[in-house]
Amino acid sequence: MQKNESTRPLILVTNDDGVAARGIRCLAEIASRFGDVIVAAPASAQSGKSSALTVGDPLYVKPQPDWGDHIKVYAISGTPVDCVKLALHAITPDRRPDLLLSGINHGSNAAVNNIYSGTMGAVMEGCLVGIPSVGFSLLSHSPEASFDHCDKQIETVVDTVLTRGLPADVCLNVNFPAVDRLEGLKVVRAARGYWSEEFAEYTSPWGTPFYWLTGKFHNLEPDNPDTDEYWLARGWGSVVPIRPDQTAHDAIEVTKEALSL
Amino acid sequence: MQKNESTRPLILVTNDDGVAARGIRCLAEIASRFGDVIVAAPASAQSGKSSALTVGDPLYVKPQPDWGDHIKVYAISGTPVDCVKLALHAITPDRRPDLLLSGINHGSNAAVNNIYSGTMGAVMEGCLVGIPSVGFSLLSHSPEASFDHCDKQIETVVDTVLTRGLPADVCLNVNFPAVDRLEGLKVVRAARGYWSEEFAEYTSPWGTPFYWLTGKFHNLEPDNPDTDEYWLARGWGSVVPIRPDQTAHDAIEVTKEALSL
Repeated sequence: MQKNESTRPLILVTNDDGVAARGIRCLAEIASRFGDVIVAAPASAQSGKSSALTVGDPLYVKPQPDWGDHIKVYAISGTPVDCVKLALHAITPDRRPDLLLSGINHGSNAAVNNIYSGTMGAVMEGCLVGIPSVGFSLLSHSPEASFDHCDKQIETVVDTVLTRGLPADVCLNVNFPAVDRLEGLKVVRAARGYWSEEFAEYTSPWGTPFYWLTGKFHNLEPDNPDTDEYWLARGWGSVVPIRPDQTAHDAIEVTKEALSL
Repeated sequence: MQKNESTRPLILVTNDDGVAARGIRCLAEIASRFGDVIVAAPASAQSGKSSALTVGDPLYVKPQPDWGDHIKVYAISGTPVDCVKLALHAITPDRRPDLLLSGINHGSNAAVNNIYSGTMGAVMEGCLVGIPSVGFSLLSHSPEASFDHCDKQIETVVDTVLTRGLPADVCLNVNFPAVDRLEGLKVVRAARGYWSEEFAEYTSPWGTPFYWLTGKFHNLEPDNPDTDEYWLARGWGSVVPIRPDQTAHDAIEVTKEALSL
């Protein structure tokens, strides 16, 4: 569907909160300062979808009204990963995007949340097919959240990645605190932590129990300045380089030995 | 719901093909040779669900008939990760399982497929909460597939992991070829590769296009004996140690430098 070539970079923008969320509109607007933007986002909210694929249902691409001269918009019926795959297949089959951006997510994707994040699922999908890819998230679930304090730092990241690319097979997970003024950015690793008290419990009118996911995040290393959560708690944005391949190379020899192989 | 303590190990078994699949029945039977088994599996097929969570709907746990003296069975309305979380919260809240097994999946989770796999989503969830966790998959999508040739090697892995545990924050992704006789197991890394021709295209009765996920996997290093795909193609099972944390530690310094931080 993308017919006109352009000397401006082509930037694919997606998210997991859906095409109607404020965060993706803000991200697409920032991206349009640097290039021609294709928004290919889920038609409905897809939070917590990780790298899930739709394997048992057909998918649809619905063109939406433009968001400006440089922003074409499409709503897709599937997950964030479906959006990336289908955008490359059906929306811009003849021109590979120069950059993939996902977000701005309404809610944290720091620490262990990376693994559950649909925002980051889309980013890893871009990375897997060789597109420099960055996810942005704000530590506020409010649909009315302000992204103004992130604008300049998002510009810096977009400009840098467009100009210099990223290391092979690496993408970025960028999180921002919900503050009035951002201190700056720190490149760090994901903090170790875990969720507890993960379900609210209810009883149906028939007397059977049912459950709804909730929970509290516990940071296992709150005083460690090598971690994303440390800086987010202190008013800084965090940048974590992410490698989709999860092979634990350092565990291969010990596993061989344990299995007597 | 688990009331009686036991000196036998407690083994949690799940999958992504759903509680009715042949593969999980086979895995639960093998596990029951070593301990008391709780099967907590999706009520319906959840293939390709990765580490997806159900955030916008309630979840249900439905007790099923036992599969034998040592196998209690529950069907859960959500994803594989939901099954693990809810099993720990509602089925066995007072006793942490000694081992989590997922599968046997009907279909490959080798190479890049790890990232999309609901089977491995459940395994990584177990790993994240400190339970030694292993996923098993067979390179056949047939619902009638035979798992007989995998039996002894699954026993070996289960016995080893129960006895020795696994390295901290590491779980295992085990794949088997669909062959008559298995050559043995190899501990290796995930092969580099990608999917192409990812969608079948159709036209609705109203003239609008729609798409269904399909695709061909391309192995970028078919001659590399360090990789899972190499050995799977030669009749061996593959064991890949997996670390859920995707921080690319080796990319932190170069990212700092690129962002002038």
